Amino acid sequence: MTVTFKDVKADLLDQIAQGVMPPGSLLPNETDLAARYGCARATVNRAMRELAEEGIVERKRKAGTRVRSAPIRQARFAIPVVREEIEAQGADYRYSLIQHRKQDVPDWLRARLSLRRGQKIVHVVCMHWADGVPYQHEDRWINPEVVPGVLRASFATSGPNEWLLAEVPFSNAEISFMAIEADQDLADHLDCAPGTALFRTERTTWLPDGPITLVRLTHRQGHRITTRY
Amino acid sequence: MTVTFKDVKADLLDQIAQGVMPPGSLLPNETDLAARYGCARATVNRAMRELAEEGIVERKRKAGTRVRSAPIRQARFAIPVVREEIEAQGADYRYSLIQHRKQDVPDWLRARLSLRRGQKIVHVVCMHWADGVPYQHEDRWINPEVVPGVLRASFATSGPNEWLLAEVPFSNAEISFMAIEADQDLADHLDCAPGTALFRTERTTWLPDGPITLVRLTHRQGHRITTRY
Repeated sequence: MTVTFKDVKADLLDQIAQGVMPPGSLLPNETDLAARYGCARATVNRAMRELAEEGIVERKRKAGTRVRSAPIRQARFAIPVVREEIEAQGADYRYSLIQHRKQDVPDWLRARLSLRRGQKIVHVVCMHWADGVPYQHEDRWINPEVVPGVLRASFATSGPNEWLLAEVPFSNAEISFMAIEADQDLADHLDCAPGTALFRTERTTWLPDGPITLVRLTHRQGHRITTRY
Repeated sequence: MTVTFKDVKADLLDQIAQGVMPPGSLLPNETDLAARYGCARATVNRAMRELAEEGIVERKRKAGTRVRSAPIRQARFAIPVVREEIEAQGADYRYSLIQHRKQDVPDWLRARLSLRRGQKIVHVVCMHWADGVPYQHEDRWINPEVVPGVLRASFATSGPNEWLLAEVPFSNAEISFMAIEADQDLADHLDCAPGTALFRTERTTWLPDGPITLVRLTHRQGHRITTRY
């Protein structure tokens, strides 16, 4: 049976977990490990690369590879499109538009996104529903200087996130998670009491040409996001 | 100059971002791409593998590789040790223990972690401070059946997370982020009003032998976590 990089990686992880290779210890070199596992050196190399990317080991060009004393663990979260998130739960998705207008850029947003003074921006506020129950409130600003097509988009029947994905399939993004207290408007839309603690995702995306969008997604009471790593 | 997998990846991303290769389109095969970029096929393969891992393209064994119509974007968050998180901000770290005892497993926790009826569990509650200001409240349960050493640990001068990292450098974990409202006890410890919306991280870790720990980390008012992807 062929030894794969996954076998090598799993075995090294076991040895680290069981303390055979304790934090700070030096791993054997790739040639020796390849001989031990009876596999190609490239196989060992790929296993080591993944362990390094996951923060388990630390590779230094001359000093070799060591088990990290405090592994830098990373959790990955999928960033879903809300329609798919709701449908994946077996619920019916519904969209509704609350507000859509072109306006002057407010000062806080101009500062935040380094926009040009006096430029226009498109502001869209909408709701996403799961089985008729409020699921997510979306408050989004879109920069027509980078995506001019937004001036012709209506957002009457589907949300700006889906429109943007079709228009700009790939962009750089910064995402934050936080807790906020519902103001009267959010409380009305999300059907909760003012002051309720709500989970919010804030995301900015941009192309080399400039910022595309800033969005605040506020989730209904009790929402949590979960992943394994 | 040698063409690296990063060059190939960046160029493919540019073409996807600019719509040269729109969502759903089929990418050239690896041999053709290697010829086009003047590099080894393994170089193209690595670039393609990363694009697939990042959810930008979709590889099917016989049908080739396509640009995803809705890229599955993933955000990665580093899971820091709180001492390092605070020190990285240039602040002084201080730890204080609130409570530490061995007790019967409460029913909710036994159900949650599939523990044995009648077993004991170690419960530790402590605070982490940044420059003398409350930073994070930690409420943690540790399973002595999987990490028996916990029965001899004191947690008087440093936190259970650091102890666990030294004892069990690597484990599987499930992590959730959510918003909660401060009860009177959390409000007292985190110096905020009862009802304040607070950001909470909940994490469970386990080894093949069983669950190690469940921890609830509640952050001071205004805390957010941010990453780029």
